[in-house]
Amino acid sequence: MSFIRSPAVPIESINPKVRNCEYAVRGEVFNYALRLQEELEKNPGSRPFDEIIYCNLGNPQALNQQPITFFRQVLALCEYPALFDSDETQKLFSSDAISRARQIRAMLSGNSTGAYSHSKGAKGLREMIAAGIALRDGYPANAEDIFLTDGVSSAVHMIMQLLIRSERDGILCPIPQYPLYSASIALHGGKLVPYELNEASGWGLEVFELKRRVDMAREDGIYVRALVVINPGNPTGQVLSESNQQEIAELCRKEGLVLLADEVYQENVYVKNKKFISFKRIARSLDYEENELSLVSFQSISKGYYGECGKRGGYMELCGFSEDVKDQIYKVASVDLCSNTSGQILASLVMNPPKPGEESHELFLAEKEAILSSLARRAKALEDAFNSMEGVLCQKAEGAMYLFPRIKLPEKAIEAAKKVNMAPDTFYALKLLDDTGLVFVPGSGFGQAPDTWHVRTTILPEEHKIPAIVSRLKAFHESFMREFRD
Amino acid sequence: MSFIRSPAVPIESINPKVRNCEYAVRGEVFNYALRLQEELEKNPGSRPFDEIIYCNLGNPQALNQQPITFFRQVLALCEYPALFDSDETQKLFSSDAISRARQIRAMLSGNSTGAYSHSKGAKGLREMIAAGIALRDGYPANAEDIFLTDGVSSAVHMIMQLLIRSERDGILCPIPQYPLYSASIALHGGKLVPYELNEASGWGLEVFELKRRVDMAREDGIYVRALVVINPGNPTGQVLSESNQQEIAELCRKEGLVLLADEVYQENVYVKNKKFISFKRIARSLDYEENELSLVSFQSISKGYYGECGKRGGYMELCGFSEDVKDQIYKVASVDLCSNTSGQILASLVMNPPKPGEESHELFLAEKEAILSSLARRAKALEDAFNSMEGVLCQKAEGAMYLFPRIKLPEKAIEAAKKVNMAPDTFYALKLLDDTGLVFVPGSGFGQAPDTWHVRTTILPEEHKIPAIVSRLKAFHESFMREFRD
Repeated sequence: MSFIRSPAVPIESINPKVRNCEYAVRGEVFNYALRLQEELEKNPGSRPFDEIIYCNLGNPQALNQQPITFFRQVLALCEYPALFDSDETQKLFSSDAISRARQIRAMLSGNSTGAYSHSKGAKGLREMIAAGIALRDGYPANAEDIFLTDGVSSAVHMIMQLLIRSERDGILCPIPQYPLYSASIALHGGKLVPYELNEASGWGLEVFELKRRVDMAREDGIYVRALVVINPGNPTGQVLSESNQQEIAELCRKEGLVLLADEVYQENVYVKNKKFISFKRIARSLDYEENELSLVSFQSISKGYYGECGKRGGYMELCGFSEDVKDQIYKVASVDLCSNTSGQILASLVMNPPKPGEESHELFLAEKEAILSSLARRAKALEDAFNSMEGVLCQKAEGAMYLFPRIKLPEKAIEAAKKVNMAPDTFYALKLLDDTGLVFVPGSGFGQAPDTWHVRTTILPEEHKIPAIVSRLKAFHESFMREFRD
Repeated sequence: MSFIRSPAVPIESINPKVRNCEYAVRGEVFNYALRLQEELEKNPGSRPFDEIIYCNLGNPQALNQQPITFFRQVLALCEYPALFDSDETQKLFSSDAISRARQIRAMLSGNSTGAYSHSKGAKGLREMIAAGIALRDGYPANAEDIFLTDGVSSAVHMIMQLLIRSERDGILCPIPQYPLYSASIALHGGKLVPYELNEASGWGLEVFELKRRVDMAREDGIYVRALVVINPGNPTGQVLSESNQQEIAELCRKEGLVLLADEVYQENVYVKNKKFISFKRIARSLDYEENELSLVSFQSISKGYYGECGKRGGYMELCGFSEDVKDQIYKVASVDLCSNTSGQILASLVMNPPKPGEESHELFLAEKEAILSSLARRAKALEDAFNSMEGVLCQKAEGAMYLFPRIKLPEKAIEAAKKVNMAPDTFYALKLLDDTGLVFVPGSGFGQAPDTWHVRTTILPEEHKIPAIVSRLKAFHESFMREFRD
């Protein structure tokens, strides 16, 4: 009788693509923070701080940002439609939330959020999103080109799965980048082709650098398939100019690259002299023919002013893809049946918020403006704090939710990190966490120019906590520099 | 100047794994049904039926099954917590829904469904699920071994991604099988190793057949990594006996196979002489040591009596996996941050429904029993109808939501199908749809023994419609046989 005592899945036997994948945002520093938190809960007072502040992830509601009232009223009514029939409902919900929820229910299979929808998402909701895109861009959008997904992550995976056949298929990604891209490329066995953003020019995206990287990769036998552009930038916060976007679109058209436009921070712009322009609008304004530029625009309900991360909603809009390729994407979507309907509903709402004249409009605008203006103030306060610190240089967060300051670490700190077998920025971030409870992600998780060190923090801690955070941060940095100054 | 006018993604350039993947449940017949429905909406009366009845997919709420009141009350309160503070709430919601929603909110990051949770799912919800599993099985469950996912599809993909390195890695799947498995194996580039269920013994799962297939595959140089067992069966409806399950577990242990137990129909058993037993309980009752058997149990909120498909919730429980392998699975889960929180909440509720003494308990039991007893009656009525039809043999649906009758198609029908380049069962299903509006899936989408033909239908149409459906079905079959009888 054969008898196997070792497990059926020894670690050596798993897919090497899984082993090669890395995701720093919930990596080493985050996991240490979870352990610290448990320790704090067991022994309050055991640390020089009384709470862990998670700045590792753009997760606003985890840090007590309140959801937009109108959105949640619509969701609650859709979840429990018995509310429609009750007299009390008029007192609890705004009239436009009630009418919007009725309208949405009628778009759902069996009038229920509990039924699988069309695999691209409920058609009525896709039509609402298409209308929202058209209003944003001034160019029409087609509901059939929109795929609703469980957050943007699953949309990105679908596209990587479609494009990557082997390690000879390359995807251009910015350095620094959001590690979803590197992780997805690794999981699908492709090649990440890096292009460097120029920190000195505020993380500028330079098209000659892109072109140089495409040519280099091709010389190495890589089939460069697509270009990832994150605008506004994550972790870098820059907002691209229109002329820069035109150059990028033109490069993709000429070189036959799919333009993968991560536009999930489209509502998060904090400076007066910049505004978000979608790559769809850029392409349309350049009068390209339909198939000349293949573009995927990703949008999420997790970011913006709404920050509905836990609902896992998002969509991708495909432009310039042939019908047979779209059929293949639809087939893959159908294997998972559909994305969750709450996320679908929220995606339709963020692209069609209350309009002037509707009962919720005033409250909606007030909530939205309060969040966005506070985010702008928080970004500025943290940016100023970093720039006041010895050896730290922080570019402006024109948009998105992050700062990515460069820290000139003393040689002694780099040596000390080497001794404990750690990247110098991880060494810094772990010490920071240990001293202050602040969870930052080391720059190495996003990629950075050789021999430069960064950390990424969100701008999301509650505004009333920012002064205390700034003090703790400065005090930590001073003591770190005292210990390690060369 | 280079200039590429062809699209950046010609169909020939996409990942062949994507092209090779098939998913019949939303395949050719379903897509034709969607077109027919549009036609019917434009020209009512243009067809011999006035509605399309979608029996292609286990999607109860699309066919007007009402959600369980308690579950939806809790969801609505979690979505819009302002309700807690209102006097009207007591009139609209049961006291235990209110207290359960409060309890759940306290388990969520930032007390909000809008925050990303832990990547395995909110810890408190996982603990509730572990408690539900322990109560079901009589053996403890560990919240750390539970991964909440957006429906079971994404859990299955995660495991396939972990296990499959190349086309030399094989996964044993029943024939007939639910095509999520074949699709996921194709997408990850593995080898489906089929084992046939014995239709004559009510779709019996015979361990000597399993062993034979393992040996054959190994002789062909395949590394057989895992065995998929669907219990209760989809599309076949059988419920495995305890002794059969013990043999299966023992085979997996001896042969070093991961047991992938699809247990999403665990609440759907319709016959008195059978009951659902989880493979976890089987393994524990056999007194295996922890690492002797690697088992993944999949559970979903889409099936059962609740049928909350659109909410995309589910979990997998891992037993007998080493910590380093579980860390890899957690890392992959963290790339997508988390599953949607509504689905997570529902998963905790279906594993912990209202208890005796709580305000909702009576209504809950009544709703649950009404659904399950009606499903049993519908299953029987459709089974009897099939068995009364010429050349049709339908096994009993002991559980799950489907019937998979075998249809002895006349040679003339097979010839006619060949002429239009169609599988004979697809030919039958398309004609049925054309004549009656009933959407069945051809057996070839699930796999069937050579030269046998089947269709799969759900048992989900509303009970009051069943007599009319049976009449239309019988009339169609008679006319089909008149036309093609040899």
